[in-house]
Amino acid sequence: MIIDCHGHYTTAPKALEEWRNRQIAAIVDPSQKPNPAALKISDDELAESIEANQLKLMKQRGSDLTIFSPRASFMAHHIGDFEVSSTWAAICNELCYRVAKLFPGHFIGAAMLPQSPGVDPKTCIPELEKCVKEYGFVAINLNPDPSGGYWKSPPLTDKHWYPIYEKMVEYDIPAMIHVSTSCNPCFHTTGAHYINADTTAVMQLIQGDLFKDFPTLRFVVPHGGGAAPYHWGRYRGLAQELKKPLLKDHILKNVFFDTCVYHQPGIDLLTKVIPVENILFASEMIGAVRGIDPETGFNYDDTKRYIEASLNLTPEEKHKVYEGNARRVYPRLDAALKAQGR
Amino acid sequence: MIIDCHGHYTTAPKALEEWRNRQIAAIVDPSQKPNPAALKISDDELAESIEANQLKLMKQRGSDLTIFSPRASFMAHHIGDFEVSSTWAAICNELCYRVAKLFPGHFIGAAMLPQSPGVDPKTCIPELEKCVKEYGFVAINLNPDPSGGYWKSPPLTDKHWYPIYEKMVEYDIPAMIHVSTSCNPCFHTTGAHYINADTTAVMQLIQGDLFKDFPTLRFVVPHGGGAAPYHWGRYRGLAQELKKPLLKDHILKNVFFDTCVYHQPGIDLLTKVIPVENILFASEMIGAVRGIDPETGFNYDDTKRYIEASLNLTPEEKHKVYEGNARRVYPRLDAALKAQGR
Repeated sequence: MIIDCHGHYTTAPKALEEWRNRQIAAIVDPSQKPNPAALKISDDELAESIEANQLKLMKQRGSDLTIFSPRASFMAHHIGDFEVSSTWAAICNELCYRVAKLFPGHFIGAAMLPQSPGVDPKTCIPELEKCVKEYGFVAINLNPDPSGGYWKSPPLTDKHWYPIYEKMVEYDIPAMIHVSTSCNPCFHTTGAHYINADTTAVMQLIQGDLFKDFPTLRFVVPHGGGAAPYHWGRYRGLAQELKKPLLKDHILKNVFFDTCVYHQPGIDLLTKVIPVENILFASEMIGAVRGIDPETGFNYDDTKRYIEASLNLTPEEKHKVYEGNARRVYPRLDAALKAQGR
Repeated sequence: MIIDCHGHYTTAPKALEEWRNRQIAAIVDPSQKPNPAALKISDDELAESIEANQLKLMKQRGSDLTIFSPRASFMAHHIGDFEVSSTWAAICNELCYRVAKLFPGHFIGAAMLPQSPGVDPKTCIPELEKCVKEYGFVAINLNPDPSGGYWKSPPLTDKHWYPIYEKMVEYDIPAMIHVSTSCNPCFHTTGAHYINADTTAVMQLIQGDLFKDFPTLRFVVPHGGGAAPYHWGRYRGLAQELKKPLLKDHILKNVFFDTCVYHQPGIDLLTKVIPVENILFASEMIGAVRGIDPETGFNYDDTKRYIEASLNLTPEEKHKVYEGNARRVYPRLDAALKAQGR
């Protein structure tokens, strides 16, 4: 089977965005604060938004299951305070849970966290616990920059983040490192901030020794690891200057890269440079780049085509990228699949 | 001949750093403010610092001429005010000028600018003019983030930067987009901030229409263009979503990438994805990554080996990367070489 480890609910019914706009308006005018119960989206509406979009493309392109989390750019942790983020995260996670319940063969949840700038990450634990224990989610998305492009939180190796890591280890769930909308006019959200965050996270992990404290902690760095694989020699060399072990020993037992790289040469580099055990199939469709590549005639984000065409991977290795690695990195996904007889 | 378009004076005599430390100390205690004339570095000291380092490696590795600018991480535009940056830039540029005078066959200057956070870039014009007219420099380094990792300046497409661009066009000189030290603990200077800045710059140029206003303006994006070539499909797709022309028409008449990518697969991707006319040979030695790659037995930053080994480039194309493109992108370099009969 083919598991896409990186899907967001980018196609939620319009009512969600309208509710969010009311919530944002209420930050300056609390009399307008909307009740979460005021958001009504029926199962039929949910099903339609999925069947006409993600599920249709999954069937067309030939992937089976998507690890599905709230829309990344809409997390917008910089907006409002913890209460705002908390209410918003609960709503978004519940929608992903309902999608997974409606299409249990095709979707399984990953949680957004109610992060808020300057707020202790341990405040995210109740939402995380609910998503894992009640919703059966198999992972979280962790935003290393809840300030939205101003990078005011400590690096991922700082003890600031340890409450989250302790829960991740307890539940044996990985985190995808994923920022949200950039408010900094220097950084285009999906063209600069996302990719920079991936690169930044890899370098933070190289600088630190986080996996000495958490040997079983696992991170998925999306968008093919940002710039890291392209500059793998630079990162190997910088680790060497910093007197760290070889990257394969220093970070590659704990860090994985997805395949959201939207052209063949990029996937070819990724699969050449990064050990196959560290590569997880993903498309992030329907996401940042929805168009058709005039050079190929296919969608940029139809990443399965690049994996299929890769000369670097044997059929056994493709199986690891498509399924085997995901079952290892997301043990709760593996357990859920086995419970389904898959 | 082989032109390395990206070299910094990273090996300047210790007296330079000592003077700078005194200058920095004087920001809080103006009674300590050092006189620029107090910095005494003899021609012999300069020559020794070059002969034992850059020039030795250039001869060993087989490059002929380096476009030489002050040490990037030491520009540190975030320190002090315009007066501090101005004095410091003048000192650093003069040293590069003296190196070029001592070794006219091997070095030619590129200027650092006296940028300072929140200060109008037009204040940099006098230093720029001096470097071009008196020192014979052929390019500038432009820091898109003088705040040092906090990204408080407008994007490169903003009119904020136009005074610099007008002078660049007038003198027909390119700018390398190059940040300096990161003060933001999230960003390792050479492992995150440098690469992120390259990626950010490319995306800013895609978002804007700067080259409609300045059709002859030319930027060199160092470190192989950050993440951009690896994610070229993403950038082609984002340009498409933004209703921009194809990247070859939108930015590639004006934007060039250097070859500071420190492993063979990275150079192979760069030379496969980016048109050969847009690739300039560079090593940035002796810089961020000085070690020997245990996988090859050679220095990571010995980038000529990767170009030589590239199967993507014919001998004619290698000549463009090594020399032809640089003569076109840096017309004042071409003129200086021709004046030397080269």
